[in-house]
Amino acid sequence: MKRVAILGASGYTALELIKLLLRHPEVEISVATSRQQEGVPLSAVHPSLTERVDLGIQHLTPKQIAERVDCVFSCLPHGLTASVAGPLLETGLRLIDFSADYRLDDPDTYAEWYGQQHPDPQRLPSVVYGLPELFRDNIRTAQIVANPGCYPTSAILGLAPLVDSGVIDVEEIIIDSKSGISGAGRSPKLTTHYPECNESLSAYNIGRHRHTPEIELVLSKKSDQPVGVIFTPHLIPMDRGILTTTYSRRLSSMGEADLFDLYRTFYEPHPFVRVVKHLPATKDAANTNFCDITLRVVKGHILTISCLDNLIKGAAGAAVQNFNLMHGLPETMGL
Amino acid sequence: MKRVAILGASGYTALELIKLLLRHPEVEISVATSRQQEGVPLSAVHPSLTERVDLGIQHLTPKQIAERVDCVFSCLPHGLTASVAGPLLETGLRLIDFSADYRLDDPDTYAEWYGQQHPDPQRLPSVVYGLPELFRDNIRTAQIVANPGCYPTSAILGLAPLVDSGVIDVEEIIIDSKSGISGAGRSPKLTTHYPECNESLSAYNIGRHRHTPEIELVLSKKSDQPVGVIFTPHLIPMDRGILTTTYSRRLSSMGEADLFDLYRTFYEPHPFVRVVKHLPATKDAANTNFCDITLRVVKGHILTISCLDNLIKGAAGAAVQNFNLMHGLPETMGL
Amino acid sequence: MKRVAILGASGYTALELIKLLLRHPEVEISVATSRQQEGVPLSAVHPSLTERVDLGIQHLTPKQIAERVDCVFSCLPHGLTASVAGPLLETGLRLIDFSADYRLDDPDTYAEWYGQQHPDPQRLPSVVYGLPELFRDNIRTAQIVANPGCYPTSAILGLAPLVDSGVIDVEEIIIDSKSGISGAGRSPKLTTHYPECNESLSAYNIGRHRHTPEIELVLSKKSDQPVGVIFTPHLIPMDRGILTTTYSRRLSSMGEADLFDLYRTFYEPHPFVRVVKHLPATKDAANTNFCDITLRVVKGHILTISCLDNLIKGAAGAAVQNFNLMHGLPETMGL
Amino acid sequence: MKRVAILGASGYTALELIKLLLRHPEVEISVATSRQQEGVPLSAVHPSLTERVDLGIQHLTPKQIAERVDCVFSCLPHGLTASVAGPLLETGLRLIDFSADYRLDDPDTYAEWYGQQHPDPQRLPSVVYGLPELFRDNIRTAQIVANPGCYPTSAILGLAPLVDSGVIDVEEIIIDSKSGISGAGRSPKLTTHYPECNESLSAYNIGRHRHTPEIELVLSKKSDQPVGVIFTPHLIPMDRGILTTTYSRRLSSMGEADLFDLYRTFYEPHPFVRVVKHLPATKDAANTNFCDITLRVVKGHILTISCLDNLIKGAAGAAVQNFNLMHGLPETMGL
Repeated sequence: MKRVAILGASGYTALELIKLLLRHPEVEISVATSRQQEGVPLSAVHPSLTERVDLGIQHLTPKQIAERVDCVFSCLPHGLTASVAGPLLETGLRLIDFSADYRLDDPDTYAEWYGQQHPDPQRLPSVVYGLPELFRDNIRTAQIVANPGCYPTSAILGLAPLVDSGVIDVEEIIIDSKSGISGAGRSPKLTTHYPECNESLSAYNIGRHRHTPEIELVLSKKSDQPVGVIFTPHLIPMDRGILTTTYSRRLSSMGEADLFDLYRTFYEPHPFVRVVKHLPATKDAANTNFCDITLRVVKGHILTISCLDNLIKGAAGAAVQNFNLMHGLPETMGL
Repeated sequence: MKRVAILGASGYTALELIKLLLRHPEVEISVATSRQQEGVPLSAVHPSLTERVDLGIQHLTPKQIAERVDCVFSCLPHGLTASVAGPLLETGLRLIDFSADYRLDDPDTYAEWYGQQHPDPQRLPSVVYGLPELFRDNIRTAQIVANPGCYPTSAILGLAPLVDSGVIDVEEIIIDSKSGISGAGRSPKLTTHYPECNESLSAYNIGRHRHTPEIELVLSKKSDQPVGVIFTPHLIPMDRGILTTTYSRRLSSMGEADLFDLYRTFYEPHPFVRVVKHLPATKDAANTNFCDITLRVVKGHILTISCLDNLIKGAAGAAVQNFNLMHGLPETMGL
Repeated sequence: MKRVAILGASGYTALELIKLLLRHPEVEISVATSRQQEGVPLSAVHPSLTERVDLGIQHLTPKQIAERVDCVFSCLPHGLTASVAGPLLETGLRLIDFSADYRLDDPDTYAEWYGQQHPDPQRLPSVVYGLPELFRDNIRTAQIVANPGCYPTSAILGLAPLVDSGVIDVEEIIIDSKSGISGAGRSPKLTTHYPECNESLSAYNIGRHRHTPEIELVLSKKSDQPVGVIFTPHLIPMDRGILTTTYSRRLSSMGEADLFDLYRTFYEPHPFVRVVKHLPATKDAANTNFCDITLRVVKGHILTISCLDNLIKGAAGAAVQNFNLMHGLPETMGL
Repeated sequence: MKRVAILGASGYTALELIKLLLRHPEVEISVATSRQQEGVPLSAVHPSLTERVDLGIQHLTPKQIAERVDCVFSCLPHGLTASVAGPLLETGLRLIDFSADYRLDDPDTYAEWYGQQHPDPQRLPSVVYGLPELFRDNIRTAQIVANPGCYPTSAILGLAPLVDSGVIDVEEIIIDSKSGISGAGRSPKLTTHYPECNESLSAYNIGRHRHTPEIELVLSKKSDQPVGVIFTPHLIPMDRGILTTTYSRRLSSMGEADLFDLYRTFYEPHPFVRVVKHLPATKDAANTNFCDITLRVVKGHILTISCLDNLIKGAAGAAVQNFNLMHGLPETMGL
């Protein structure tokens, strides 16, 4: 039985994580923290947890945390994580970080997209990007795993076989993503106020969403040349789910049947990617750790469609998958 | 052509009012105010108004307003209205007030339910409650009209014929109302944050919603004894619409056919109440000034169902209807 | 390990049941049937089951079913179940029936509300109504369990402590229920066509919904006099969830604190009822087997609010709870 | 005052058309037909029209229609229209057709995409495509106007200035569209059953949606070379609204400011296109005849976003706009 801490326990990804861990046979949630909610029972922050977990929000030092748990899940926001990670890691704890702070390996790219100097640049080389379908072996031994962003998970899983096999022009991949509103977090804002976003649909952060360099970085590692993407996120009136449609110019003569073979072979060892012939709906993957992927060839272009639950495979489920790998447990345990 | 001012122009009811008035052949919107948005074009506050109205948010004194317009629609929040109404009315302007400040005729009841002394009690006797189906003649000549609350409009219109004709026990009427989320206004809160209220349903303010005394007061005017109601509002995951279900003990031997006759006769002179045999849906009345009403007799009780659009018949549409009556225009003009 | 069959596997309650049973450590799904879909893999009927279950829809005789499984879950529609139950039960199989066919113990009441003679009246005396919070001991030994309706579960759990303790007038209880649209089943109809019911709200079957006699029958068993209810269901634009608001005249002097004590004591032995002080939202119970209940006293009336997931506690979860009791397993296993 | 007939009056676009025409000062709706609903009042088919229109569904011959009206709006489905258009047009009536039957000018392309021979090919040369922003002058004098598809309207308006000015590579334009569910019509199907499509998101008809040749045909008329598009439609859980995102390779050195000037100049004479700097939401254009357009330059590509209400600017509103032009009325009358 592993004891774990959850930092930043008041948000949506933390809630999903708690629900998953409550079912996990090898995990005990021992610590939960949240800056605003200290002293309050977890079920007061998340009414759905009433009578399901008997734990209060605490404020603890890194040393106190290290005395109580074996592994830390950090759901803290960007910028804050890197400032607390150091002391935790120095105690020897292992860390799965939901923020973007350790996803980019280049501090300059971080500074460019996040508008501030990276607070902990010397640690970047030791971080493993927590997408098990691409980096499973490195995850097993990592001390710190950067849990991927929700959009990047959908885009990278959709494109990785194409980029890896060199069948597309990687210089101008178009990624058109659509996400449910839980992806915007739990802080009320006008843009996520019900009567504003219900029955509506809009694009946002065109050309400057921070997941762009993350997608390019990870895909470039699978290519022999730098990958360039145009990434457009859209906000969809539903709670959860991401559907990502990508468009790439085909450089090969492979047809749809060959490409499906390529995808099936690529993902055969990976239990949470389902390569499907039909056009998947986000609802098929909702409340699961699956990513459903299909593809079509249209007029010399390869289109991919990938669907996942942004809070599970796009966040908390991936974290549990990483946790399992880091602790020698079956990859699917509790998922 | 009447020139009008809209105070508090940044909310949802103000937006609906503006859209209605832009179609109104006898109205020119000359002034719009909003505390937070001074100097900004109206279309920056409400993007849907882009290229539809060329007006900026201003800050004006009552005297300046009086020089520019003939009538004022106040969409200011409760408490604030009564503090600005006096100076406006003293200039001779006519006022249609969306807040609750002038709806209750008893300052003590106001103090009890709103938690503060009424700021302008001496004016209460001259106010007319702006429900044209009950008080049309008084509205015509009023200087200040208190536009009804959205829940009270649905409940009162549903029950008025029963109360008026004495066929029910008025001491314990049960009113179970369901409202879309725009009724909660435009300020972001956790309770109206999309992922909190979407795909969910809850009751709120049971037994202590401020529309309770308003419903009791107005219905009591139509009865020969004090009316007592138990009012339970619920929040429904949709933008707009109220459906109110009422349950009353029947004191008469009237059957459904007789009761339908009663309703049809009662509402025959009123163009915006549709007495229907089928069970109405809020969508039938959405984006219109109609209130659809039906009834059923079940086990000695009379049930009524009334549906309306909370932003139109429950707010902005009723205000235009009142405006028309106050200015000798056809009651349906622009609606 | 118990082997089970699911009859009528193409609907929503069957899908939820399958998902629950896939997590259940003591169950193996061995047979799935569906009239329209014979020969098709389950994952073709329910894409969300892709790679999660390797089972095809079959057509089998009762004898063949009896050879392969220990227990049958029947998700067949009303009327059809009673015609297949006999042969199955005669093989000695145990049956958990989701339909209404065995819920009413009086064939005349069935004929009155369902418009047909009961097809299997002699079996009614041996059926147990599968609400564990009221009939747990009988369920343990039953051969046939009638799984409760979704509305009745919410209404009965909300009212049972009041009826049982005699603190309310049981002759005219008002039950105002609100349900998500999955409760209407998976067959496309105009009333459940997305653009018809989205952003809308309506009541239906007022005074003649078939769950009325079921509620009255079960509550009457807990009272010393016949219980009479006025039951009004409403359709809410969301997938899942029921919230039931009840209104009863209080006959006792008990206050809210006493009544909360009554409820806590009543439900203390029952792991899936959460008595809460706050006003619960259906989302708190969504995707769980919990029923959340609260109450308020208003003007001499007791109001109860109960929330549950109509597909889980209102159907598939209750069935698994019953299955556990029938097989001597922990009541919460797999839930 | 013009008298009009509406053929196929039971669908959603017909309902929107009726609502618009009821406000139109120069129109009287004299005839409504529907194959399934003959003899029924319009308000029985569309409850929202109760007490708003006193007209029954009729079955009339073309000659009878011609005796009663000046202009026909046909909301009949594809295939059926072309079989009734001939007799109507031979009486001299003018026709605005909502179906796709007359949108493509090449019968072979029609046969390829619609799977049947065109029923009326000799009439195609005289048809005008009813997009006023591109073909206003031809519409004025046309006897038959093919009202554009909803997706094509959004895509063509978004791209026309780019194609017309030659600043993009027109051979491989990517069009990623997202539509509300009312676009699928009013016939219940599993794909539009509420619990299937609510809280979900999917692509459909990739590479083979019938609006593809319509978009290519119309854009090619504005280009000096054939335009080729990859068109991917997605179904969004909301009633109404289309947002179309397009991606084109830029061939010119024009920056965003220049391109905005290009768009503003192009659409300056057109009252229903709003070129906006912000990223528009479909809600801004909902229930109006506006199409909101913006653009961004990203990594050598030009992205456009266009939003409209699929039932108004994408159908009924465009038809009224065409009607106004055909009858010498102000283009914006009634809109």
